[in-house]
Amino acid sequence: MVIDFIADYYNNIEHYPVLSQVKPGYLRHLLPRSAPLAAEPIEEIIKDIETHIIPGITHWQHPAHFAYFPCTASTAGILGELLTAGLNVVGFSWVASPAATELEAIVMDWLGELLNLPKPFLFSGNGGGVIMGTTCEALLATLVAARDRKLAEIGEGEIGIGKLVVYCSDQTHCAFAKAAKIVGIKQGNVRVVPASKTTSFGLCPDELVRAVRSDRDRGLVPLFLCATVGTTPTAAVDPLLPLCRVAREHDIWVHVDAAYAGAACVCPEFRHVIDGVEGADSFSLNAHKWFLTTLDCCCLWVKDPSALRKSLSTNPEYLRNQASDEGGVIDYKDWQVTLSRRFRCLKLWMVLRSNGVANLRNFLRSHVRMAEAFEKLVAEDARFEIVVPRRFSMVCFRMVAGARRRGDCVVVDDGVANLVNKKLLESINGSGRVFMTHAVAGGIYMLRLAVGATLTEARHVAEAWKVVREQADAMDVEGIVGC
Amino acid sequence: MVIDFIADYYNNIEHYPVLSQVKPGYLRHLLPRSAPLAAEPIEEIIKDIETHIIPGITHWQHPAHFAYFPCTASTAGILGELLTAGLNVVGFSWVASPAATELEAIVMDWLGELLNLPKPFLFSGNGGGVIMGTTCEALLATLVAARDRKLAEIGEGEIGIGKLVVYCSDQTHCAFAKAAKIVGIKQGNVRVVPASKTTSFGLCPDELVRAVRSDRDRGLVPLFLCATVGTTPTAAVDPLLPLCRVAREHDIWVHVDAAYAGAACVCPEFRHVIDGVEGADSFSLNAHKWFLTTLDCCCLWVKDPSALRKSLSTNPEYLRNQASDEGGVIDYKDWQVTLSRRFRCLKLWMVLRSNGVANLRNFLRSHVRMAEAFEKLVAEDARFEIVVPRRFSMVCFRMVAGARRRGDCVVVDDGVANLVNKKLLESINGSGRVFMTHAVAGGIYMLRLAVGATLTEARHVAEAWKVVREQADAMDVEGIVGC
Repeated sequence: MVIDFIADYYNNIEHYPVLSQVKPGYLRHLLPRSAPLAAEPIEEIIKDIETHIIPGITHWQHPAHFAYFPCTASTAGILGELLTAGLNVVGFSWVASPAATELEAIVMDWLGELLNLPKPFLFSGNGGGVIMGTTCEALLATLVAARDRKLAEIGEGEIGIGKLVVYCSDQTHCAFAKAAKIVGIKQGNVRVVPASKTTSFGLCPDELVRAVRSDRDRGLVPLFLCATVGTTPTAAVDPLLPLCRVAREHDIWVHVDAAYAGAACVCPEFRHVIDGVEGADSFSLNAHKWFLTTLDCCCLWVKDPSALRKSLSTNPEYLRNQASDEGGVIDYKDWQVTLSRRFRCLKLWMVLRSNGVANLRNFLRSHVRMAEAFEKLVAEDARFEIVVPRRFSMVCFRMVAGARRRGDCVVVDDGVANLVNKKLLESINGSGRVFMTHAVAGGIYMLRLAVGATLTEARHVAEAWKVVREQADAMDVEGIVGC
Repeated sequence: MVIDFIADYYNNIEHYPVLSQVKPGYLRHLLPRSAPLAAEPIEEIIKDIETHIIPGITHWQHPAHFAYFPCTASTAGILGELLTAGLNVVGFSWVASPAATELEAIVMDWLGELLNLPKPFLFSGNGGGVIMGTTCEALLATLVAARDRKLAEIGEGEIGIGKLVVYCSDQTHCAFAKAAKIVGIKQGNVRVVPASKTTSFGLCPDELVRAVRSDRDRGLVPLFLCATVGTTPTAAVDPLLPLCRVAREHDIWVHVDAAYAGAACVCPEFRHVIDGVEGADSFSLNAHKWFLTTLDCCCLWVKDPSALRKSLSTNPEYLRNQASDEGGVIDYKDWQVTLSRRFRCLKLWMVLRSNGVANLRNFLRSHVRMAEAFEKLVAEDARFEIVVPRRFSMVCFRMVAGARRRGDCVVVDDGVANLVNKKLLESINGSGRVFMTHAVAGGIYMLRLAVGATLTEARHVAEAWKVVREQADAMDVEGIVGC
């Protein structure tokens, strides 16, 4: 019954508004005030899901979902989750379910090889991979490992932690500053280097050098750099090769956050975006983003697993066992923040096998082609501009001119462009036909079309452009400009 | 096909050895060295799961799984996970899927009321609940919130964080010390108060007072107490009422970790174990442990959600939206460590409705009765003793005497009892018929029988006792004693 419900959901998904149209608080008065005393039949529950829950869903699997980054599902991913829930094992240590640990190590080597990660990141090269829920956890784990290694070097003393500095750009995901705060880095020691349009919003190595030198001059201790391949605002790529060179010189741990774009590296033609990764200490991508593996599945590789273990291992008596004591096994609880962990590698293994590498590559390439087509449509309309060069499957664009009521054209100057585009986005999403989100980089408000939903086809992207044009046509740009 | 596989798995589960009997590294030579280029049929994958994965599974759903704490699955829980994966929405903020946020708030109030949590922990009383993956995350989130609130009070200065002290007992789960370490509490400032057999391994309030006073005298700042209801080693209960009184006097945040035993509080007759919780700041239980909701589902309630939000909120431009700006909605990303989050409340809602409160109570009570029956069997055998009074569905016992080869009895003195019981546990688990784990408290090595798997019936518990007796009969206690 539930399988049928899901099948019907996907059959009908195009009929739903992508962005839920409910108002805050809609659900509370639709549901009872408390849990039922007696059991209710599954039919009732499914009916309630249809009538009460579905209207409150923003449909991430809708082929016209172009917002944020994709979060792709697939039959293999969904069935993998089903199996994980069915077996429901807790693989915190090897003995607690050997297959959960061993399959994860194998699949992380498989995927690492597909990405052409340097050997030292793989188990076969004395590094290794681990699956977490989200990038936030990967950042937290690597930050703690780097922090503790550094504090051991400089002496833990009372003020040790207060001297540590971490680096990122103003395009880095907010999860990084949050993770830094959680591990006790002083807010004033999160060094946010501005990235500009001249470097396509990539982090400039010279700026990093300046920041690091200035910190060292003040007696501070550089700790960690979060470099991003495919930033959230514009899918920008920080240049790993020169950044890692700077970092090595100053003994800084480099983490490469390739949450969205990392998946593209399974295609040889995109692999160059992580050239230089051999100089980094850790690398992560979210297989749940653009790799058909349902939420959640963040893949983290590290060169030095012992750094994670030194910070994150626990060995209470009640978890002791012969296999762990003998030391020949992986106990993943010591690689991550949490103890309990789902059998997540099962779905990633199923996605890899069920699709095969060739189809996965075609899947990614098809999204890039769709984004290229959209970029072309935008470029052909004089009212619009591509704000930053398209990367991967994301197009960042904005309206720069609108039609006057009497037919000729009014150029939107930079002062009001942000307001015009904000209003344009509101009307696009208000249509319910597509869902996009926005970013601001270098002071420029832009619309983001992130292609990547599993069901998206060329016609959906063409339709998205049609919606954008129609809403632009209908906009009273003159009125806004006149304000 | 996958549903059939899972149904067959549960039909056959009693035929598997509970504890996987594979050797480290068994899987690597059974699987290909890399991911396949071409797609493989699901039939192949399922066949490989049967032949290669299942032998490496330690069956947490086996009715004779008495190890660690239970991690219960149920049809409603599994179907809930399936639906979550099918819809695959990312509910980090309200707008990203309103139903995911609103249902979570409603269900957390439902469950909070069932537990008879004081009103200030519920949304209806200006507190509120949030679902995370594991207790580790709940501890991390509350520790950071408490830390930042305290640092704001005492001034963040360079040495602020180095002065903070957190408290627990030597029975507290290792996740607490790990979380404290992650948030930057100095290792020397994790105050572990010894709990003894005289208080049934509950944390003694007088000992806490002594520790807190001593720290204050040295200029340190008491920050946080983790009190446990149902400790991992022996299911001990820390006395909340007097502990919270001490904590209030010294402005210490109290978190109540009721990961396993909290579920029992939906039965009025067990609710007294959290009497005094009104003096705490936060409370958590794992619905995936003893509440039929598959891994992972940690429910956390706090009295002051703004403390979480002050520490954990992020507001990058690319996530800004009208609903959040207007402030009338919950954005759960600001209540937790991670940004992305699964639609976990769906399965908890389905478990509550599909079972009904009455059946859930009966489910919990039946496990307690089975543990009582086991306790009685142990008590009737002169070779064994119950080490600590049984709590909930867990029995802690050990062998204190064994038969000589020539028929009469040899008392195992305390010096060798630990070794004897270690060997006894090894032989019990080696049988493959049951799986138990051990604990050491007050220097005593004991066996733990944690009843709680969904399929466990009285006959499985009787069988477990039979295995224990048989292995005890077969043991060469004299030989061990003679060593």
